[in-house]
Amino acid sequence: MARTSGQVHVIGAGLLGTSIGLTLSKLGLDVSLEDSSPAVTKLAIDFGAGRNLSESDEVSLVIVCVPPDVTASTVIAALSRFPNAIVTEVASVKTSVLEAVSQSSADSSRYVGSHPMAGREKGGALSGRPDLFVGRPWVIAIEPETSNAAAEVIEKLALDLGASPIRMSAAEHDRAVALVSHVPQVISSLLAARLVDGLDEDLALAGQGLRDTTRIAASDPKLWLQILVANADALLPVLNEFSEDLSDLITALKSVNSSGALSVIAKALESGNQGIARIPGKHGSRNTEYAQLVVMIDDKPGELARLLNEIGNAGLNIEDLKLDHATGAQVGLVELSVMPNIENALVELLTTNGWKLAG
Amino acid sequence: MARTSGQVHVIGAGLLGTSIGLTLSKLGLDVSLEDSSPAVTKLAIDFGAGRNLSESDEVSLVIVCVPPDVTASTVIAALSRFPNAIVTEVASVKTSVLEAVSQSSADSSRYVGSHPMAGREKGGALSGRPDLFVGRPWVIAIEPETSNAAAEVIEKLALDLGASPIRMSAAEHDRAVALVSHVPQVISSLLAARLVDGLDEDLALAGQGLRDTTRIAASDPKLWLQILVANADALLPVLNEFSEDLSDLITALKSVNSSGALSVIAKALESGNQGIARIPGKHGSRNTEYAQLVVMIDDKPGELARLLNEIGNAGLNIEDLKLDHATGAQVGLVELSVMPNIENALVELLTTNGWKLAG
Repeated sequence: MARTSGQVHVIGAGLLGTSIGLTLSKLGLDVSLEDSSPAVTKLAIDFGAGRNLSESDEVSLVIVCVPPDVTASTVIAALSRFPNAIVTEVASVKTSVLEAVSQSSADSSRYVGSHPMAGREKGGALSGRPDLFVGRPWVIAIEPETSNAAAEVIEKLALDLGASPIRMSAAEHDRAVALVSHVPQVISSLLAARLVDGLDEDLALAGQGLRDTTRIAASDPKLWLQILVANADALLPVLNEFSEDLSDLITALKSVNSSGALSVIAKALESGNQGIARIPGKHGSRNTEYAQLVVMIDDKPGELARLLNEIGNAGLNIEDLKLDHATGAQVGLVELSVMPNIENALVELLTTNGWKLAG
Repeated sequence: MARTSGQVHVIGAGLLGTSIGLTLSKLGLDVSLEDSSPAVTKLAIDFGAGRNLSESDEVSLVIVCVPPDVTASTVIAALSRFPNAIVTEVASVKTSVLEAVSQSSADSSRYVGSHPMAGREKGGALSGRPDLFVGRPWVIAIEPETSNAAAEVIEKLALDLGASPIRMSAAEHDRAVALVSHVPQVISSLLAARLVDGLDEDLALAGQGLRDTTRIAASDPKLWLQILVANADALLPVLNEFSEDLSDLITALKSVNSSGALSVIAKALESGNQGIARIPGKHGSRNTEYAQLVVMIDDKPGELARLLNEIGNAGLNIEDLKLDHATGAQVGLVELSVMPNIENALVELLTTNGWKLAG
């Protein structure tokens, strides 16, 4: 049963808009949608994400899911077009939209900014999926002037989509995402950019570390250009600190025998250890809580299933699983993370069943 | 059957030495080993990685697996201690060892540097495992003065351990690993270091992107200090270029309205796209060759196995699998990568069997 009530209108049928429309439609809500491209609107409707808006509609909630650079103007227009609706949007940066809406002549009391922390490297209506928001944080940007009733409408929306609502101010949100999302994107892109001129024989030595550190460098440059520009103020302090640390490290590497050089390098590596320990793991727990085992399997259909089947049959739960690439070889290394209290049982099970594992 | 012949002596019973000893022993080779710590030597022997060296032994091949800062001196000593043996080592940086050995009075004609591109975030004898090198590149550092016979001994060793031998010069190797391994380590550590002072509520918004970009920041600072110092010359050009790109980006973000600023930011993001496309994927193929599907599963024992079981029973092979964390929720998102020619069959299978997936 949906918590949200009344007609919901989605503006922008990309990945987020389509995914929202799909889920709310499946919950039985009346969803209308529009996109600046009639072809995209039609595609999303065919997809099951909603119906066309009609003149007699009485919209209760408008969700603006357009690119960041047109989010504020679309929100302002929607506040006039739908005079009885709460209007929210899902852009990755909140302060700039809030400022534009507040400074406009629109009725900003009906506007609540929000940001579902979900996405994929691929965009577009065809990438839309009903589970996109499940278990993800959904930030609701609360300012002193935000009415609690309006915030609750968005909170219900987030819950209907399976997300976990979190209230914070627009400025708090922008600072947080600069640190945990936007700076990592910038750094990953700059790191991957170093590979452009690399030799093929150098790249042939690439391992999982390079793949992981550069994965998000595959993200859409057009979208990210808008995000980085909109959140430049929050990005700069973090990037400046990173840049200072990097300069210190370069200086130390230039003269590793000079006094204090080793301690600068060691400190950078140790701070990295400390930083990663602060990232919450799955289900909000710490990464370091898990025990890890590596199992070697043949790279053929059914082998991974057979492994996990035996583990599942024994009633043991896997918290995380990583397939480790073995370049050029027809084997797979499966890294299993489990709660420490079942590690011994798992080792015994796998050893008994003849799997090859560490030790 | 082992390609390697004669007695193999391993010096240093950490992760690499123990893993080498385990595999060669399993192949039926006579492996002796020693570690500067008698307790570690005993542990590795108990583990099945080899036996104690005895005075009457005639060693054919010595593999030095000690920390980087004592690798060269241990190689030089081994060339004297074992006057009829080929001596190799597995340090992550090759030029510094080569120079020290060449400048010593030892018989450097019996020395061949090598580097297995394998490792784990955890070290130590207890982390040793026989499959550590399977499918990994194993660089054999060939100089003009290296005898082909000596190089072939190391090539056979690499093949016995399941690795893929690659010949390159020490300088070529050091430049390659600076780009694909050492710079990513530095950048990941500096990025994770930014989290140390982050607020808990900011870190609560962390997603998979942050986890991936910072994973290797968990690596051992003592080991990496030695690697970075030894390879400083090869690291500096790449770090300097990164630093220049970062400075340009910071300048652009400081005044996003100034002429050319947007194009600097867009270019950084686009270069990231181009760089990541150059990384070879699993089995040497390109990452971009795979089709991807996301399936939502309940987070309980056996669910992932049930999914993979059905896929395996249908004879469909998964090239890669990623479990996507859903913070705070009891569901898992499984991203499956498959060859494009089986994508349709997989979608049909999963839809028919009632799995929830994209679209």
